Amino acid sequence: MAKSDVKVLGAWPSPFVMRPRIALNIKSVDYEFLQETFGSKSELLLKSNPVHKKIPVLIHGDKPVCESLIIVEYIDEVWSSAPSILPSNPYDRATARFWASYVDEKLFPSMKEIVSADGEEAKKAAIQVVVDGLVLLEDAYAKCSKGGKFFGGEQIGYLDIAFGSYVGWLRVTEKFNQVKLLDEAKTPGLVKWAEAFCAHPAVKDVMPETDKLAEFAKVLAKARAAPPPK
Amino acid sequence: MAKSDVKVLGAWPSPFVMRPRIALNIKSVDYEFLQETFGSKSELLLKSNPVHKKIPVLIHGDKPVCESLIIVEYIDEVWSSAPSILPSNPYDRATARFWASYVDEKLFPSMKEIVSADGEEAKKAAIQVVVDGLVLLEDAYAKCSKGGKFFGGEQIGYLDIAFGSYVGWLRVTEKFNQVKLLDEAKTPGLVKWAEAFCAHPAVKDVMPETDKLAEFAKVLAKARAAPPPK
Repeated sequence: MAKSDVKVLGAWPSPFVMRPRIALNIKSVDYEFLQETFGSKSELLLKSNPVHKKIPVLIHGDKPVCESLIIVEYIDEVWSSAPSILPSNPYDRATARFWASYVDEKLFPSMKEIVSADGEEAKKAAIQVVVDGLVLLEDAYAKCSKGGKFFGGEQIGYLDIAFGSYVGWLRVTEKFNQVKLLDEAKTPGLVKWAEAFCAHPAVKDVMPETDKLAEFAKVLAKARAAPPPK
Repeated sequence: MAKSDVKVLGAWPSPFVMRPRIALNIKSVDYEFLQETFGSKSELLLKSNPVHKKIPVLIHGDKPVCESLIIVEYIDEVWSSAPSILPSNPYDRATARFWASYVDEKLFPSMKEIVSADGEEAKKAAIQVVVDGLVLLEDAYAKCSKGGKFFGGEQIGYLDIAFGSYVGWLRVTEKFNQVKLLDEAKTPGLVKWAEAFCAHPAVKDVMPETDKLAEFAKVLAKARAAPPPK
């Protein structure tokens, strides 16, 4: 497929935008990465995702596909030759989808609670919630990986992409709060997994450096704290 | 498959529990319906869904599958002979998943806002949000149904199940607020669709009567308003 037939509308710091990019890399599909300008929304974005007006959007030919995990499934189904992203067994597929949903609905919101926690006690409590949530994922990793390096076994798959896209922000959260969220004592499997995931050929050029992401986080925090433009 | 090999943990008024039940009916799979007692959680539920502790859970053999839409996809994949629940075309699948997610993340939460709205003005505004959300779905229906009676075309499918499971609660909301949320003027397609959906053989014995559901809603509201037990 010609490069111009596949476009990703997004922005480099977004964990959600990383997902279709990693999936396309896994499938060796070239794509054009059209970055949205921070703080505004392009005409193409508004036209392509009129319901949510959010990145990422995959534009395949002239068809837009929205919502990061739905895009990943779409990519797996359209470019259906190996390597597969979803497991082949229905129960393993359901398990991967379950934990991917857990990551989006529980784990990531709990990470954001650390940022908004008011006071040391509240922050400590919020950090504990994230650590407890990661311990659950450590257990899922032991089961899903079946001895392989990744949630997907020997190859990175759906849940690797879903959770892995947060690793940069997890590291930024650790840096800002001087705390270890992934550590050898409680989540030894995930510590090794995160290293292997970030070094994977489909991931390494997409995963932002922690320092660069931390700088962006500061800009983002400043913009959110500023009064809205008149 | 023997009936005892497939169990659904649930409760009749839950829209989420309706989903796997309809999907199993579509596939002509017999199942045992194990109803949770309102206000408590069984040992089996806590063991089967230790992360969320929520219904529905599908227990297939000895394996639990959680999260209603993930269960529906699992059912479609395990009992893969026709009729199919997800469309076969990847783009149509992505579209069905997109709107199913919209229904859960936008439309249903906006319906709950009507209940919690304080005062006539706030209620009116909350109703308008739901109506606007339904108008978007009317448009999706026109596109997805391709001239058929259902979102899935001639047969009910994934998005029919996802949205259809709310029809009972939509009618209860209409009844309590003396308002038409689905109406001939703004959502004529959905008015006809809702009738056809509720009359479908896979749905009719699962869809609760509006009056019965309204009685349950009163019990639920009373329980929620009561102080927690000491």
